[in-house]
Amino acid sequence: MTDTVASLMAEIADLGTDPRRGGYSRPVYSTAELDLRAWFVAHAERRGLDVETDRNGILWAWAGGVGEGAIVTGSHLDSVPGGGAYDGPLGVASALVAFDRLAESGVTGRRAIAVFPEEEGSRFGLACLGSRLLTGAIDADRVRALTDADGITFAEASRAAGVAPDHLGADPEALARIGTFIELHVEQGRGLADLERPIAVASSILGHGRWRISFTGEGNHAGTTLMGDRRDPMVAAAVLIAEVQRLGRRVPDARATVGRLVPTPGGTNVIASRVDLWLDVRHPDDVVTRYLVDEITAVAAAVARDQGCASAMTEESFSATVAFDPGLRDRLAGALDDAPVLGTGAGHDAGVLKEHVSTAMLFVRNPTGVSHAPGEAVEDGDAEAGARALATSIAELIGV
Amino acid sequence: MTDTVASLMAEIADLGTDPRRGGYSRPVYSTAELDLRAWFVAHAERRGLDVETDRNGILWAWAGGVGEGAIVTGSHLDSVPGGGAYDGPLGVASALVAFDRLAESGVTGRRAIAVFPEEEGSRFGLACLGSRLLTGAIDADRVRALTDADGITFAEASRAAGVAPDHLGADPEALARIGTFIELHVEQGRGLADLERPIAVASSILGHGRWRISFTGEGNHAGTTLMGDRRDPMVAAAVLIAEVQRLGRRVPDARATVGRLVPTPGGTNVIASRVDLWLDVRHPDDVVTRYLVDEITAVAAAVARDQGCASAMTEESFSATVAFDPGLRDRLAGALDDAPVLGTGAGHDAGVLKEHVSTAMLFVRNPTGVSHAPGEAVEDGDAEAGARALATSIAELIGV
Repeated sequence: MTDTVASLMAEIADLGTDPRRGGYSRPVYSTAELDLRAWFVAHAERRGLDVETDRNGILWAWAGGVGEGAIVTGSHLDSVPGGGAYDGPLGVASALVAFDRLAESGVTGRRAIAVFPEEEGSRFGLACLGSRLLTGAIDADRVRALTDADGITFAEASRAAGVAPDHLGADPEALARIGTFIELHVEQGRGLADLERPIAVASSILGHGRWRISFTGEGNHAGTTLMGDRRDPMVAAAVLIAEVQRLGRRVPDARATVGRLVPTPGGTNVIASRVDLWLDVRHPDDVVTRYLVDEITAVAAAVARDQGCASAMTEESFSATVAFDPGLRDRLAGALDDAPVLGTGAGHDAGVLKEHVSTAMLFVRNPTGVSHAPGEAVEDGDAEAGARALATSIAELIGV
Repeated sequence: MTDTVASLMAEIADLGTDPRRGGYSRPVYSTAELDLRAWFVAHAERRGLDVETDRNGILWAWAGGVGEGAIVTGSHLDSVPGGGAYDGPLGVASALVAFDRLAESGVTGRRAIAVFPEEEGSRFGLACLGSRLLTGAIDADRVRALTDADGITFAEASRAAGVAPDHLGADPEALARIGTFIELHVEQGRGLADLERPIAVASSILGHGRWRISFTGEGNHAGTTLMGDRRDPMVAAAVLIAEVQRLGRRVPDARATVGRLVPTPGGTNVIASRVDLWLDVRHPDDVVTRYLVDEITAVAAAVARDQGCASAMTEESFSATVAFDPGLRDRLAGALDDAPVLGTGAGHDAGVLKEHVSTAMLFVRNPTGVSHAPGEAVEDGDAEAGARALATSIAELIGV
């Protein structure tokens, strides 16, 4: 094989482009994401890998025979709306190139590439659904009932993609096949750019969660309703969003974001009857995350009262701070030319798997530091260095 | 004919219901609105009225022969998203019943019912498009290029509905056929409910306009971007919305509303790169409206600066305060049992036509006072009283 990471990335550059937002919109089980999955399967089969789709829609491509205790690498092919090219696909393309290098070197140890569905949670609102289902970290009934913006359930989307929804759920046999998991990912910040290094090993993932806050007031005509007669949930939401920034800034190392807001009915000449917004909060100390969310919840109730509205808070997900296996981390950093060790604020399937198997992550330099937006970037030389580092890591763990 | 307003309204009660928002969503030239137009045409033809669609998509149904100087009544069939049952259709159904009563009484004078497209501006962002095109108050090229949320242009939607977009524009011949225009409309406030009267005659329409404010910042990852490194347009929008309420409350009789807001890309774990919001401002004194919008524009620029963002303000429409013909107003109030005279904060096609022909409006009591929301209401007895008042008004003007 003469594929490079850059040539593989070029093959998928036209799939799922989003002319309105810029970048890529590749929701799980959309045409774009299914095309990307087909692309991966074609590449895996060309390499003679044994490809299977498991009961949770995770794609596996095996070298050295299917079995327990394998070295598994991989990532995801879905994206946030208007995301960059590398978040997810870089890990998949790098895995294919790393497997080529291992094959060229005559490495025969059992290894696999795994591609996880709905890592971003952009379509069904919950991230890392594939790894959470696999490990039993989430109830299959809850996942089946999740709906997208068009009211399509995860069960329906899964069935349409050829994955029978009845069989979703914890899969201890599939999990036992993973001896060690390594995910390669574009860095989602400027740590490596500032250090002038191409590759890092991960130390930890910040604890993070998503909460939906709903304000309900009274829908009415924007022209005929006096200011004093209003119960306007948009104003309540606005005051809260400004407070989220103020509270988030006050706590060192916290990140608190409202990136999504939906007014109902959403007409220009209509006072909204309801506003839903989604809150993303992260902090290295889970106690602090909880404290901050509790503070925001109390402020939401107070601003709702001020506006004659009601507020409701729903936790959609919470993932505790994850520290990766320190022994594995140091072993890989040593094998990779004393690669720097960096934490990350972003969630990953590796963070879910870490509770069950020895897990590591490699990061590839992102010169802009931008993530979840079209400005995300990786230079070709760094991409190839990433694939080499992944091959080196797998060889180290296989014990070549 | 034995139709009542209530029986006609019951016939269309299932068209364009919106299960998510409640109430009705009947955007212009949607299946729901086209079904309503077909319903109107069928009723007009059953009554032997001469039906035509003019070059701007306005439906006309004539009694007494097509010609100049007619008494014309009518309203619209499109709705805001999640609107009530009566805003628009009540005026159309009442016109049909009023024409029945006039025919029963042997009135032969020339009269017509007109149904205007895109009164609400809910699909293409500009209200009263039919009457603005008819009167030449808006440039046809501008209208053709307007796009809906799916990127469909008005020209495309118009063509799909059977109205050739090339012929849109000022239509002095059609306008000359209107001698006097009377629009019957559900009241959009509690004026009549408080007075315990069923019918009012309009004095004026508040000046009003729509402005789009766009904040652009930097899209990035919600987990990896430190609070101090952000240029978050959602926070700028939020601070502005709270200020819109504060400034609006400070000015007596002003109404200032943000009911629609669209973040891009709109992902939960993504700091928005751009937020568009729409501002609706109304006041009886157009100078005050302008002053308030200028103040809000200055605040938008300041909050954008504070957040490291840019802001841009676009006036999408502005309609000056309209005082209806006082002679006609008093003549109708006299003919209608000394009906009370009330102003309104809502825009109407009558406000556009008023610049060109003698124009009046009748309001029918709304016990909830709610408008542009499912809670809008009219009691059956008041609806029939409205149709009687409309018939009386037309007969008065025909000079029976």
